[in-house]
Amino acid sequence: MKPQHGRRRVVIEDVSPQVDGGRHAVRRIAGGEVVVTAAVFADGKDDLAARVLYRHSSENHWRFVTMRALGNDLWSAAFRVDKLGVWRFTILGWVDHFATWVGELRKRLAAQSDASLRETMLGGGPNPGTGLNAGSNAAEQDIPIALRSGAVLVREAEGRARGNDAKLLAEFAQTLEELARENRATYDDPCNESVIELMTRYPDLTNATRYDVDIPVWVDRERAMFSAWYELFPRSASPVPGQHGTFRDVERELPEIAAMGFDILYMPPIHPIGRAFRKGPNNSVNAPPDAPGSPWAIGDRTIHPRLSLGAQAVGDQGGHKSIHPQLGTFADFNSLVTSARSQGIEIALDIAFQCSPDHPWVTEHPDWFNIRPDGSIQYAENPPKKYQDIYPLNFESANWRGLWDELYSVFEFWIYRGVRIFRVDNPHTKALPFWEWCLGELQSKYPDTIFLAEAFTRPHVMYGLAKRGFTQSYTYFTWRNTKAELESYLEEITRPPVSDFFQPSFWPNTPDILHKTLQEGGRPAFMLRVILAATLVSSYGIYGPAYELAESTPAEPPAGRGESEEYRNSEKYEIRQRSRNSPESLVPLITSLNRIRRENPALQSNTSLHFHPVDNPQLICYSKATSDFENTVLVLVNLDSFNEQSGWTSLEKIGCSAHESFMVEDLLNGTQYVWSGRNFVVLRPGSQPAHIFRVSRMQ
Amino acid sequence: MKPQHGRRRVVIEDVSPQVDGGRHAVRRIAGGEVVVTAAVFADGKDDLAARVLYRHSSENHWRFVTMRALGNDLWSAAFRVDKLGVWRFTILGWVDHFATWVGELRKRLAAQSDASLRETMLGGGPNPGTGLNAGSNAAEQDIPIALRSGAVLVREAEGRARGNDAKLLAEFAQTLEELARENRATYDDPCNESVIELMTRYPDLTNATRYDVDIPVWVDRERAMFSAWYELFPRSASPVPGQHGTFRDVERELPEIAAMGFDILYMPPIHPIGRAFRKGPNNSVNAPPDAPGSPWAIGDRTIHPRLSLGAQAVGDQGGHKSIHPQLGTFADFNSLVTSARSQGIEIALDIAFQCSPDHPWVTEHPDWFNIRPDGSIQYAENPPKKYQDIYPLNFESANWRGLWDELYSVFEFWIYRGVRIFRVDNPHTKALPFWEWCLGELQSKYPDTIFLAEAFTRPHVMYGLAKRGFTQSYTYFTWRNTKAELESYLEEITRPPVSDFFQPSFWPNTPDILHKTLQEGGRPAFMLRVILAATLVSSYGIYGPAYELAESTPAEPPAGRGESEEYRNSEKYEIRQRSRNSPESLVPLITSLNRIRRENPALQSNTSLHFHPVDNPQLICYSKATSDFENTVLVLVNLDSFNEQSGWTSLEKIGCSAHESFMVEDLLNGTQYVWSGRNFVVLRPGSQPAHIFRVSRMQ
Repeated sequence: MKPQHGRRRVVIEDVSPQVDGGRHAVRRIAGGEVVVTAAVFADGKDDLAARVLYRHSSENHWRFVTMRALGNDLWSAAFRVDKLGVWRFTILGWVDHFATWVGELRKRLAAQSDASLRETMLGGGPNPGTGLNAGSNAAEQDIPIALRSGAVLVREAEGRARGNDAKLLAEFAQTLEELARENRATYDDPCNESVIELMTRYPDLTNATRYDVDIPVWVDRERAMFSAWYELFPRSASPVPGQHGTFRDVERELPEIAAMGFDILYMPPIHPIGRAFRKGPNNSVNAPPDAPGSPWAIGDRTIHPRLSLGAQAVGDQGGHKSIHPQLGTFADFNSLVTSARSQGIEIALDIAFQCSPDHPWVTEHPDWFNIRPDGSIQYAENPPKKYQDIYPLNFESANWRGLWDELYSVFEFWIYRGVRIFRVDNPHTKALPFWEWCLGELQSKYPDTIFLAEAFTRPHVMYGLAKRGFTQSYTYFTWRNTKAELESYLEEITRPPVSDFFQPSFWPNTPDILHKTLQEGGRPAFMLRVILAATLVSSYGIYGPAYELAESTPAEPPAGRGESEEYRNSEKYEIRQRSRNSPESLVPLITSLNRIRRENPALQSNTSLHFHPVDNPQLICYSKATSDFENTVLVLVNLDSFNEQSGWTSLEKIGCSAHESFMVEDLLNGTQYVWSGRNFVVLRPGSQPAHIFRVSRMQ
Repeated sequence: MKPQHGRRRVVIEDVSPQVDGGRHAVRRIAGGEVVVTAAVFADGKDDLAARVLYRHSSENHWRFVTMRALGNDLWSAAFRVDKLGVWRFTILGWVDHFATWVGELRKRLAAQSDASLRETMLGGGPNPGTGLNAGSNAAEQDIPIALRSGAVLVREAEGRARGNDAKLLAEFAQTLEELARENRATYDDPCNESVIELMTRYPDLTNATRYDVDIPVWVDRERAMFSAWYELFPRSASPVPGQHGTFRDVERELPEIAAMGFDILYMPPIHPIGRAFRKGPNNSVNAPPDAPGSPWAIGDRTIHPRLSLGAQAVGDQGGHKSIHPQLGTFADFNSLVTSARSQGIEIALDIAFQCSPDHPWVTEHPDWFNIRPDGSIQYAENPPKKYQDIYPLNFESANWRGLWDELYSVFEFWIYRGVRIFRVDNPHTKALPFWEWCLGELQSKYPDTIFLAEAFTRPHVMYGLAKRGFTQSYTYFTWRNTKAELESYLEEITRPPVSDFFQPSFWPNTPDILHKTLQEGGRPAFMLRVILAATLVSSYGIYGPAYELAESTPAEPPAGRGESEEYRNSEKYEIRQRSRNSPESLVPLITSLNRIRRENPALQSNTSLHFHPVDNPQLICYSKATSDFENTVLVLVNLDSFNEQSGWTSLEKIGCSAHESFMVEDLLNGTQYVWSGRNFVVLRPGSQPAHIFRVSRMQ
């Protein structure tokens, strides 16, 4: 069967960026550019033209930007995305008969003048017998008839134009027609740049080909890409020994956290904690009666929410829309959110979609869970292990629509209460189609929301979650410790296709993960790992004050297992009060890192990351630069937390400089050096584990 | 908006093979396999199952093959394509609740027996205080209730089964139910392999996810991939000096061509040649009256076809459906086709969609051409060059539908006359949407047709033509002469994604291209280039007898240009009679090459091509093997046509052997050697420019 538009000769292929052929959105940050490239070609050798069409979902009309040819059939153009939400772009390409005509006319004119020159000088004429009429006069070069052909094209453009443009085109057509009638021996070029530019504004799009996908681009606010997270347990925040901390206590800590330079404060779940099978210290199944329990065992329907402001504040009875009474009220929560915002910090909540046996959903919606043949609800298990304090949700429930709506409403409930950033617990244990719908709905309604996926699982699943709407993701950074591991992992995640949909967040520790490197390397290891996290990628976080204090004692490994990545006396199961300002505290280093990140735009995105060779496998060297190279940061880190390491760098390409000398200033201590391609560095664990250089041209 | 099927937890991504997301067909050869891989994953840790669904377009029902997990969420399965034409495949994936249940039950059983063992030996019990009930009896491991859960799954499968299978499943469910009721202290595993296998045949597909594209696979006959082409000008085939050759003369040459081992005989256009602006020898514009003209200047409406057999044989009047009278009649043509077939040779025609000014379309359908403002038809030009003997077709014609139908009918006309292989001249100057339609229609009606694209143009256009249906394509082989050039080009075209849609044909010469390497290197260069063409890829061709005779004299370069790749006294413009059997003729070498290709299946496809290092840039080394490594061919070629070259090979991986010694037999001369990873080779231009080894294990 013939296509409807068989005259559309242009083919458009290999369009980038795109994620799975437009199935998922490319992600960009507001204010940034989308640089589009595509193969645009047709049969023959006619000139082509192409545009990127683009629009925000709120706009009715497509805007366009003209593509330019890069050679070899590749074309490119960029457009700026200045508004949050969904944008779409596609490509329109067509045969540019006018440009083709101009090019051929100019060749004819050149041949005509060569010929008249030769005739003047040598009396020569057309070159017989070779098939090549290398020279001829205007008539032999068909210039009069070519002028008439051009006039036809200009007349058609005149018909598409209006007002003065139409008038100018009519004049130009008339000029061509008159010249053709004069039938001269030689001609000058009748096409000037202004008339050519005018013609490009009225192309004949009748036979233009449009790429068959409108590629979605999701545009986030800047914090989606550039953020420093600080995680704390509010119940540990009380200054009174032995007392359960509150939102008010956290609010008092805000200046300290702001002074360190963090811009997101994230708290584990703040909801009522279940009583059935409550865990005691160190994950014990025999909890003492006063054990506070794990914040991730969510729900206690015996709790009635202490209401605060108006109808919006009414939560469920002790579930995901309630606040644990010992943390405070909705009014306290609101005060914390407001106070944080005034200090440049956003509150992030942890949304963990799982229930304690006491959660109200268990009685109100048992059909959202797996029911066993005896009518009981299936608790979490990984035989032979049982987690009887946790009921997982069943995403194959016949009533999945009701479940989806309720889960969605949890986010919306907290969005109404001023929260825009969510850390989502174990999203890889909830169905991916749910996330695609839920995050899609939320982001189109609240385009400033940010979702961090706490997924530590296989790459396809992690990337699958990112494609389905998670703004940021935890990563394998914790388990990438050697130079080779770090370089190959970073090269994977900071370049397309992954960087088009996946935004990494590097966490050297979490309440669940105290890596062996930190257990064994102690404070020097904590220093180097936070330096890596804060400078390799633009979003990172720490769980404090465990990190500042370099808490490194692991839990006893469970029977039959070699090592534990859990903390001894984990804050997940007990209240742990401590001050982050000990003499050995890493607060000064962390404060410097966050200042350096804020002051250097190069560190605020990932795509410029470039690794440089050093001749010592324990030293890693990388740079990041803004696209104009106005800001270039060069980082060297000693990956060995026990021994001094030294080596020679090879900086064949670092932003502003190639082979000549350049200035570097260590932003950690202010020292300045004159560097060139090869430099000798010595880095000492604990005292000077890294250089973070700002690079500048020699004055 | 929620999706219709929110319970479909499985996600399917990264499906291969596919060309542009299923926009174009993957190409395979009948009898071969399509090895499908995909990422298939879901939330959580349930077991999954997946199938490749596939069918030929003539079948109403999907067949399936079960995929197996490769690890890291990748799955794979292969199906055989045993019929020409369009196949489609897609993937179905689902959560396998029964497999999940079996796995968990077995963990429970293991924990139960560990516990009873410990109880017997140590009097130990559950391990309190760690959250890990590492041991317990059957009840503590919930085995009775797990058996009941399993019985539910089996009962559901029973409902989907019929006959004896249903009966067996009912018995198994009953066993599980009874065991659960017995409520023992310990249990044995009730699941044997036959019952597990039975369950996999009745999966619950209610919530199965189907990949959203049915990926097309075009299946060609073997000659699409494995072919040796021989091009000759029939008008040069007369044994009588000065006489215009005929199809009868070509028929007399068939045994010689068959003896060389070629299986496709391709002739330049056989249609009447235009008279207006006819070209003379060496492309002269002033042709003598008796000049035969160029076969590509097609059409002379003054010719009335000499009819032969029945209505089908009626051509147009002197156009693409007519035969040049001096070549013979339709009866002669038919005789040639039939005789060739009986000798294992297929006749390929050259279809060049362009017209001489005398072509019947010019008068009957002037609207298929570009009309100039003076009403004349636009001839081909590339200012300042004019080709007044050629009128190009206009694919933007308002009557494009009529044009497409007529062009299509040209192919069908010759298909009716027994031609199944077409070499298409300059397809890149005809609109790509036309080819997609025309070749798609032809191939679905005549799935044994083969189309060779004579496109020497930019990569996107060449690949664009292949994606739109051309079976084989000319390549850049002619201009890839160094080892680095050959290796990088071959690696591009013999691996996915390119190898999934592009089938190269290597031509060391054509009537249009006598490369500088051949001009300068003479006979030794002709030897090495045909050895490369015949062994690097599975389809190749030569233009003879110019090749056998190593004709190497180029035309005078046109004025103002440095070098010519045209032949002196090109056969395109004159009759050139010569015998291919001179003493220096390459016929024996070419005959050997074609025999070696036929006898070694390794050389009959491209995807196994692997390059091996040699420590001399003038020596190239590569191997090809069948997938079972039963046939492995190792080739070494001296790329220098002037000097002896020697070097050491590194054969770390060559099919049947790794580090141990192996036998090689040079198929060009029968010599045998014992080789290992490192071997010293000396190759001499002209006498022994290459080894073509068959590799075998030591006896």
